[in-house]
Amino acid sequence: MTPADRSRTSEGGEDARVARTRAAVSRAALHVLTHEDSEALTHAHVAEIAGYSKTTLYTHWPSRVDLLKMALDGLGDLPHQTPTGDLRNDVIGELMKFKQAVVELRLDRVLTAMAQSAPVAEVAEVRDHINREAQQPLRTMLTGRFHGAQLEAAISMLAGVVACPSLMFGTVPEDDIIAAAVDLLLRGPTDSASG
Amino acid sequence: MTPADRSRTSEGGEDARVARTRAAVSRAALHVLTHEDSEALTHAHVAEIAGYSKTTLYTHWPSRVDLLKMALDGLGDLPHQTPTGDLRNDVIGELMKFKQAVVELRLDRVLTAMAQSAPVAEVAEVRDHINREAQQPLRTMLTGRFHGAQLEAAISMLAGVVACPSLMFGTVPEDDIIAAAVDLLLRGPTDSASG
Repeated sequence: MTPADRSRTSEGGEDARVARTRAAVSRAALHVLTHEDSEALTHAHVAEIAGYSKTTLYTHWPSRVDLLKMALDGLGDLPHQTPTGDLRNDVIGELMKFKQAVVELRLDRVLTAMAQSAPVAEVAEVRDHINREAQQPLRTMLTGRFHGAQLEAAISMLAGVVACPSLMFGTVPEDDIIAAAVDLLLRGPTDSASG
Repeated sequence: MTPADRSRTSEGGEDARVARTRAAVSRAALHVLTHEDSEALTHAHVAEIAGYSKTTLYTHWPSRVDLLKMALDGLGDLPHQTPTGDLRNDVIGELMKFKQAVVELRLDRVLTAMAQSAPVAEVAEVRDHINREAQQPLRTMLTGRFHGAQLEAAISMLAGVVACPSLMFGTVPEDDIIAAAVDLLLRGPTDSASG
């Protein structure tokens, strides 16, 4: 980066303004996606909430898919459990973070919005990426314990403990159900390998 | 039902015509929901596909929620495994039927459409009812083996084996992953109670 580039990206520069606009639109789009019907995700409505003109939005993000991708950008890094090395504790902690993300970030609405728009290949790619990233810590935790079909099954089963009540019944599981799921999965013949 | 009522509901009567209209609109609405974007679920589009006038649709099903409920009506009874008494076999069979419903009926798109519209209380009620009914056979199978938090965990875990890949990655699990999930759940200390 040259000094000239640096000054262009400084606080008052054009790039900084674009970045601020992007951040505001991203936040507004995510808010609409998680707090309203996904049909509310229109240029006019997001522009109003973000405090920018409809023209600005159409210029930078012309399509509805652009708005959806902006909302997903606004999600940022999801909360994850910091591994302690105690498998049971770590997996329960990770599912509690997933539950927290459903309650606080309305991750359930993000998931369904992505799934609904997934027939658009561009959205399917973003969705796959976000969901792969989101599951990575759980996958890493379980890799020492399960492999192959068992590993894939274990990941879906644990994700399902939070995802299924959220997506099918609009609720999150009680903490004792999360613990019961982890104990059901980690008991059995290979238990000695845990911890 | 009086004889007069009976004749009114006969093949050529007014009630039969209404029933035929309802069935056609229901089928068309479900087709749009599962084969197109949920935003395509409009009176004009469903009317065109069903072969009825927009006015007819607005008269009987004035709101968009009405159209969504018609689509869900069109789903009818979901396919289920006929229990044989062999728990492992029955649970695997039930999950295979769920997988089949995702592939053939696009149940994944029905699930996300219901979840997306669930902020409307009326839709949330229908969704809860449909999902409860859909899970009932699995719940019945597992009730002899698990109870309380373990039972709720087990149901979400097994549903998750099909639901999570479908909703998060647009895929269905290979058969060996379904079998691995069932074996992971049914192994362990209480195994002797199975079958």
